[in-house]
Amino acid sequence: MLGSTHGTFTTDLRARVVACGQTTGATVHGTTAAAGDTDVSGRPLYAAVPDLDRLFRPGSVAVVGASDTEGRPHTGITRQLLRWAERVGARLYPVHPTRRSVFGLDCVPSVADLPVPVDVAVLLVADPLPVVEELGAAKARFAVAFASGFAETGAAGAAAQAALAAAAGRAGVRLLGPNTNLNAFEKFRDDLEGPAIALITQSGHQGRPLYALQELGVRLSHWAPTGNEADLEAADFLSYFAERPEVGAVACYLEGIKDGRAFLLAADRAARRGVPVVAVKVGRTEAGARTAASHTGKLTGADQVVDAAMRQFGVVRVDGLDELQDTATLLARARPPVADGVAVYSISGGTGAHCADLATAAGLRLPVLSQARQDQLHQWIPGYLDVSNPVDNGGHPVGDERGRKIIDALLADPDVGVLICPVTGPFPPMSDRLVQDLVDAAETTDKLVCVVWGSPVGTEAAYRETLLGSSRVATFRTLGNCVAAVRAYLDHHRFTRTYRSPFDEAPRTPSPSYRKAEALMLPGHRLSEHAAKQLLRAYGIRVPREQLVTSAAAAVRAASLVGYPVVMKASAPQIAHKTELGLVRVGLTSASQVRDTYRDLIDTARYEDAALDGILVCQMVDRGVEMVVGVTHDDLFGPTVTVGLGGVLVEVLRDTAVRVPPFGEDQARAMLGELRGRALLDGVRGAPPKDVDALVEVVLRVQRMALELGGRLSELDINPLMVLERGQGAVALDAMAVCR
Amino acid sequence: MLGSTHGTFTTDLRARVVACGQTTGATVHGTTAAAGDTDVSGRPLYAAVPDLDRLFRPGSVAVVGASDTEGRPHTGITRQLLRWAERVGARLYPVHPTRRSVFGLDCVPSVADLPVPVDVAVLLVADPLPVVEELGAAKARFAVAFASGFAETGAAGAAAQAALAAAAGRAGVRLLGPNTNLNAFEKFRDDLEGPAIALITQSGHQGRPLYALQELGVRLSHWAPTGNEADLEAADFLSYFAERPEVGAVACYLEGIKDGRAFLLAADRAARRGVPVVAVKVGRTEAGARTAASHTGKLTGADQVVDAAMRQFGVVRVDGLDELQDTATLLARARPPVADGVAVYSISGGTGAHCADLATAAGLRLPVLSQARQDQLHQWIPGYLDVSNPVDNGGHPVGDERGRKIIDALLADPDVGVLICPVTGPFPPMSDRLVQDLVDAAETTDKLVCVVWGSPVGTEAAYRETLLGSSRVATFRTLGNCVAAVRAYLDHHRFTRTYRSPFDEAPRTPSPSYRKAEALMLPGHRLSEHAAKQLLRAYGIRVPREQLVTSAAAAVRAASLVGYPVVMKASAPQIAHKTELGLVRVGLTSASQVRDTYRDLIDTARYEDAALDGILVCQMVDRGVEMVVGVTHDDLFGPTVTVGLGGVLVEVLRDTAVRVPPFGEDQARAMLGELRGRALLDGVRGAPPKDVDALVEVVLRVQRMALELGGRLSELDINPLMVLERGQGAVALDAMAVCR
Repeated sequence: MLGSTHGTFTTDLRARVVACGQTTGATVHGTTAAAGDTDVSGRPLYAAVPDLDRLFRPGSVAVVGASDTEGRPHTGITRQLLRWAERVGARLYPVHPTRRSVFGLDCVPSVADLPVPVDVAVLLVADPLPVVEELGAAKARFAVAFASGFAETGAAGAAAQAALAAAAGRAGVRLLGPNTNLNAFEKFRDDLEGPAIALITQSGHQGRPLYALQELGVRLSHWAPTGNEADLEAADFLSYFAERPEVGAVACYLEGIKDGRAFLLAADRAARRGVPVVAVKVGRTEAGARTAASHTGKLTGADQVVDAAMRQFGVVRVDGLDELQDTATLLARARPPVADGVAVYSISGGTGAHCADLATAAGLRLPVLSQARQDQLHQWIPGYLDVSNPVDNGGHPVGDERGRKIIDALLADPDVGVLICPVTGPFPPMSDRLVQDLVDAAETTDKLVCVVWGSPVGTEAAYRETLLGSSRVATFRTLGNCVAAVRAYLDHHRFTRTYRSPFDEAPRTPSPSYRKAEALMLPGHRLSEHAAKQLLRAYGIRVPREQLVTSAAAAVRAASLVGYPVVMKASAPQIAHKTELGLVRVGLTSASQVRDTYRDLIDTARYEDAALDGILVCQMVDRGVEMVVGVTHDDLFGPTVTVGLGGVLVEVLRDTAVRVPPFGEDQARAMLGELRGRALLDGVRGAPPKDVDALVEVVLRVQRMALELGGRLSELDINPLMVLERGQGAVALDAMAVCR
Repeated sequence: MLGSTHGTFTTDLRARVVACGQTTGATVHGTTAAAGDTDVSGRPLYAAVPDLDRLFRPGSVAVVGASDTEGRPHTGITRQLLRWAERVGARLYPVHPTRRSVFGLDCVPSVADLPVPVDVAVLLVADPLPVVEELGAAKARFAVAFASGFAETGAAGAAAQAALAAAAGRAGVRLLGPNTNLNAFEKFRDDLEGPAIALITQSGHQGRPLYALQELGVRLSHWAPTGNEADLEAADFLSYFAERPEVGAVACYLEGIKDGRAFLLAADRAARRGVPVVAVKVGRTEAGARTAASHTGKLTGADQVVDAAMRQFGVVRVDGLDELQDTATLLARARPPVADGVAVYSISGGTGAHCADLATAAGLRLPVLSQARQDQLHQWIPGYLDVSNPVDNGGHPVGDERGRKIIDALLADPDVGVLICPVTGPFPPMSDRLVQDLVDAAETTDKLVCVVWGSPVGTEAAYRETLLGSSRVATFRTLGNCVAAVRAYLDHHRFTRTYRSPFDEAPRTPSPSYRKAEALMLPGHRLSEHAAKQLLRAYGIRVPREQLVTSAAAAVRAASLVGYPVVMKASAPQIAHKTELGLVRVGLTSASQVRDTYRDLIDTARYEDAALDGILVCQMVDRGVEMVVGVTHDDLFGPTVTVGLGGVLVEVLRDTAVRVPPFGEDQARAMLGELRGRALLDGVRGAPPKDVDALVEVVLRVQRMALELGGRLSELDINPLMVLERGQGAVALDAMAVCR
């Protein structure tokens, strides 16, 4: 802020930001939510887990629109369903108005004629609505609709989709689709062991590489190709999978999210149960978001908000399907880490250096091994080679019994939780034995053993037989995917160890602030600076001493009450950038300056056609770091809270962090950690550290305001919030609020 | 800057930054450099290309230390060299002091006894020095030293390595190694066609995945495993490869760079010839850099500088060996682009959306196809599917003749230069024909056709036979690597189309500024602010009107000459952070303020124990954007020029761009484009655009200064450089210089 550098406030600001003594935004209720519970904004705190057992393991399946006439499109699908039913042991009932039998099975003319209430009705017909309407009487549990042409085609399609969902609701069936496909009926290999990946995809095709993981020995347990999600949505499957004992991780390919809150509640369930969720979410760019929206007709949300929401609830977001495969596989199968140190071991100093570089860049910690450990390793590794970590064995030791001893010594190190061994190129006399030793050692340890098989060929026996034959060694094809997956693995376990559900702690009843705030709201209007500051005061957020005056004489009186020097500002609801318009004057030190400035501002405002509600005479506060704290509304997740660097920098650098309520103090602090300019708060160039606690408190109070005022507060912007020295609080120097 | 907001300069600053009329830092000589030419700093402008034909295709090879005794370590190497010699048609001469023959070949006791002057002497002996000394008399051309234990082990090893290099120089042999290996003697497949990849690696093992590319049909022509680079270094191979007609791209795995200038001259040669260079360079992190240094004993350089230097000369830097493979293969084989538009085509809307998202995020341009083109595509693709780009065919059209027609229509579009077709999962009835159509279509077009084979399995016939069998289709395994490689491909061709070598335009003789500057240098000292500003003036960089005074009366006289308001600063060479110490006062508007401030500053300075050379009374300049421009010295590349946002932000956000001289105006402008805060220069929140031309000119003048003063100027820091409104120039408000 321009102006004098004299301090203008002393003890009064040491009272910290809390001025009114209300409960704060982080009020701990600590009650585990149950069905029907809502937070103060009326949104659910609990989502039931749908029982989808019979959808995934049906005993009886009706195929509506079944065909065995060669050349008809449904014939291929019917044939595949028959084959699938045979493999999973389900009984199949063809339904067709005119056929007597299909592929030798008796056919009934309509679902009303089915001899039993089926678990699943597969609807191949172009218009599934009439069939869904009949399913209630037929007592089917689930319907799967393949037809397309719904929400992905525009408004008319969206209406048809809503009608379909409503019909399913009336009929008491849960509907998968429309716009889903045969991927809902895949048979999984049952010879694979260990924790499995459950798969959710909003595009069937995008799930195929994950399905193919079974050929590499990775177990899959479920695949939900959710299509348009008229009824059952990704969140339903996510919470169902999180409860299944065989599921080690859930892998998702998402283009949009049907209901942001439902998704977060499902992610919360997975987080509580420690089940990792890994997701590709399209929408990094506007082009991608637009295309995705036209594909399955869902909202993609602002990408920064999606990113934040996923991070809050521990969902690991990745970009490529290859990363989805690698990270989901590791998180599904690896046991919890016993230490977070990573050792890199290779037969080449170059490979070790490269791996250490990328691992460190990915945020992994490579501890320097103790001298005792290094001495031990040097029993088997020539003395001139570096074994501090990365460990370079020079090649030869892998050819004999030294190889296994080195691996065991590394795995025995208490500071090592993960061993990464990049095998850049196969050289069978060395790499075959190295790989076998790693596979054998992995059987004897709780620690994570990763191998990066660097050959681009991938047909080598050591890779296909030895490595892929082991479910205890995590095998990767690229260093990049390996270090990213290991980072996600360590982060996931760190996250779940300390996870406390914010839904349990979300406020359920309005705070005393709420009544005061309510009285200030002007639906459909933008509040003046003065009114917006009263709103902040209602929530216990400190604002400068200030008075709204309508005469020069009153301005002078106000200035002496507020204390010189003062700032004077035109107060008008409709003016956004007062500084640029010359409607803010700082550093006024005398009554005569105040008097002159009053007239100046009135003149300038007239020139700018601004309808003033007066002139604000404010305490001048200029020794701190300018931040912004605000509320905006996201299409997917509702109100969001943002914090960032203030002033002109906000617009230029976009150095902001965002969170989706509800969130606790830990997340508010984490937001500050995401700011590039964070060091400004810690104090740079000899400046004292700033009152981060007060800033965190403001963020939580703003969250509370966003929750309580809900949709009625469509936008709030505290800019700047001056964060003073540690212990001195934070003051909202300017504020803007828009009511809906 | 704090202080009054009144404008204090008018016409005098409209004269722009150029005050003294010297030649600028971008003086165009425009002469192509030749051997022996140096720039004004005495550094070479030209590097000769070593003739390495006989190293790579020797007719005769001596193996010094050859053995055929089973169990001896050299026996295996001798056997492999024999096998290699047979395949490439070289004659092999074993050398050993006591053996009469090795593997049936006559053995001579020393290199002096060789019957012919050999092209290459392979030195298997632990101490290659005595042999290298004898090689001069034996008239050998090249020596290859396998021994390790040189610079990678510390100072003694580095001395031994220097002695070895000196001996090679005296003997007139070029030396590869020490610490190299058998990878220098690989036989390449000669049944593969098209432009080849030439490979340079500082670790043999790290080259193996690239060598293995031949199994996927990619041609390799050379492999230089350079080891410690006592003599021949990566730069020598790079310039040699750049001249070879069969080389389509050079792929490098680098841990350090022996000589920064030599590397840049070699990269310049490749850039002039349009030969793409793709490199992994270890050292993203300090841990990686340290490990790399201990591996081959080379300097790794500051990573931001390495990054910038590579970008200046068009070297594509990648992180993983998988990216090195994919990008080098594409750049080697793909013809120049005819358009930079990318079309994405797939059998699934989800796949298209995902690919479009990642492609756009990678900076690729996906043009919306014309309505006419979309109408054409809708002849073959159902009308409800989106064909605007990405193009979703819904699957079925690939099964018949429509598939090829769609591909041809996309390749016929003048706005499409690249077609990317992600095949996420193989479904043979569809994907086999799709892939065959793509391979066939690629034969008929100059445009780039890329396929992403998303299956993690990689044993499918469509992949291994059809796709890998084509050298016209670029096949990738991940979307991420595909879009990154396509981006590098388009960037490379854009770069080489407009490339002008900065070495041709580098100044060779000192400017008139140089004499003035020389007189100001104080070797081993830090200059006072006043002296540093005189240095800037010598190079035509504008500084504020200011006077250095030593009495209060003189200060008042100076203020009226300079013009009120003024800034007063204590001037002392040894004080770095004057503002923090209270040694800067701004906005002084009267003689009495100046007089009081003078005394204050003298007192404060005494308190801070600062040896003043006086008090500076300066013109106040406060309407602009504060930037920094500076010079630092990089271990690898010598002086570098940095530009960034000024003030306290520099330290917090590190928003800086750096370049290695020599560079031209285009690069100076590109530096500004790399700044996150760039928009501040363009004018934000209604502020007028700033004088970017003047800023660019300052950067070029600082470069000139760095080149002319060379090592004698160890550090220069203009902070802040106030960049005024467009047309008004830029003023160096403070400066710091350290002489060596």
